[in-house]
Amino acid sequence: MATTRERRDTGSLGPAPPESVPRGTLNEARWQEILDAAGVVFHEKGYRAARIEDIASRVGILKGSLYYYIQTKEDLLYALALDGHTRGLATVHEDEATMAADAPTRLGAFVRRYMEMLPSAPEYAPVAERDVGLLSPERRGHIMAMRNEIHRFLRAIVEQGIAEGHFDAALDPAVVTNSLLELLHGTIRWFRAGGRMTHSDVGEFYVALLEHGLRPPARPPE
Amino acid sequence: MATTRERRDTGSLGPAPPESVPRGTLNEARWQEILDAAGVVFHEKGYRAARIEDIASRVGILKGSLYYYIQTKEDLLYALALDGHTRGLATVHEDEATMAADAPTRLGAFVRRYMEMLPSAPEYAPVAERDVGLLSPERRGHIMAMRNEIHRFLRAIVEQGIAEGHFDAALDPAVVTNSLLELLHGTIRWFRAGGRMTHSDVGEFYVALLEHGLRPPARPPE
Repeated sequence: MATTRERRDTGSLGPAPPESVPRGTLNEARWQEILDAAGVVFHEKGYRAARIEDIASRVGILKGSLYYYIQTKEDLLYALALDGHTRGLATVHEDEATMAADAPTRLGAFVRRYMEMLPSAPEYAPVAERDVGLLSPERRGHIMAMRNEIHRFLRAIVEQGIAEGHFDAALDPAVVTNSLLELLHGTIRWFRAGGRMTHSDVGEFYVALLEHGLRPPARPPE
Repeated sequence: MATTRERRDTGSLGPAPPESVPRGTLNEARWQEILDAAGVVFHEKGYRAARIEDIASRVGILKGSLYYYIQTKEDLLYALALDGHTRGLATVHEDEATMAADAPTRLGAFVRRYMEMLPSAPEYAPVAERDVGLLSPERRGHIMAMRNEIHRFLRAIVEQGIAEGHFDAALDPAVVTNSLLELLHGTIRWFRAGGRMTHSDVGEFYVALLEHGLRPPARPPE
């Protein structure tokens, strides 16, 4: 069996198509439709209960046609998880000025980049996180490595802030990192677009909360 | 069909047993074992994919024996959701002194009560939240009403803090409430007991974050 772990160089986040399929027959727009359908079906029914037939009929194609794109249902879950985590991982890229800035500035910039990314996450995005445990060990390991990269990035900023004296030295960097990622990522669980507030407004609340909330508690008067 | 929505007056959180079963034949310890097994199976397989047989065999009883306790698989999901949300709702009860205190004090006390409750939540607790959407409309409505009660309680504290001038007047109480509940509840998604930090340590981090993070940004010198 061909493995499907290589990323295509087209910028698509799906697994590489099985080797037996000539590339010319694959349609990128259709692949995205299939992924969206899989996301919706997994989200509604749960990954284990979802059937390939449900996904095919949502796209309006025959089940057999799906097998031009994937070999197993798990290929779809993996592609969705890669998609979501690639979107998350993109938010750790800093421009040079930000990279050289102090920790509160870098943290604020990260929160804003993350909140700018969120509106592009589909409604079924929680699937990519929730069902990662159902992937094969190798694929799960790859996704966890992406997740760890985001953690390491944020944790380094927290450690920098403590070293600089901008953040409270009593903070546990791992606890701060985990809970901040829950805070930011948790937005997708309650935020509904179209109301009074935008993602960016919510982001400014997070920035202010962290700006004041992570400071050393007692500062001697200057 | 008998409905099973009434709560028993024994303090148990399960749905009432079907009327046709004499109470004397039901065993509370066994009922808790069944609920735990259902939680684990729903957590691992997803609610839709879980089979009554899986739950029965985990408890070591025949599938038929399960029907002394429930009528449908949904009864188990509902009992788990009631259980989790009852645990959450218990954290909104304040003693008289706290009830009369200012908003930062009440908020800190709530965070501490919530973090004291978390260790009693089973590992499968996310099921109770995640799969609520799969309950029948009436049962889902009941669970959502419990959730709304927690929201209303916390939101009132945020509004009190703004009115008192302890919290930034620019805060949106709904955004603060939703994101704080994600922050607190999100702990179950990353925290593993037995390490350097306890739930209570993490709670103190949240208390400090909020104490400083929700204050009005610019305070004139006194």
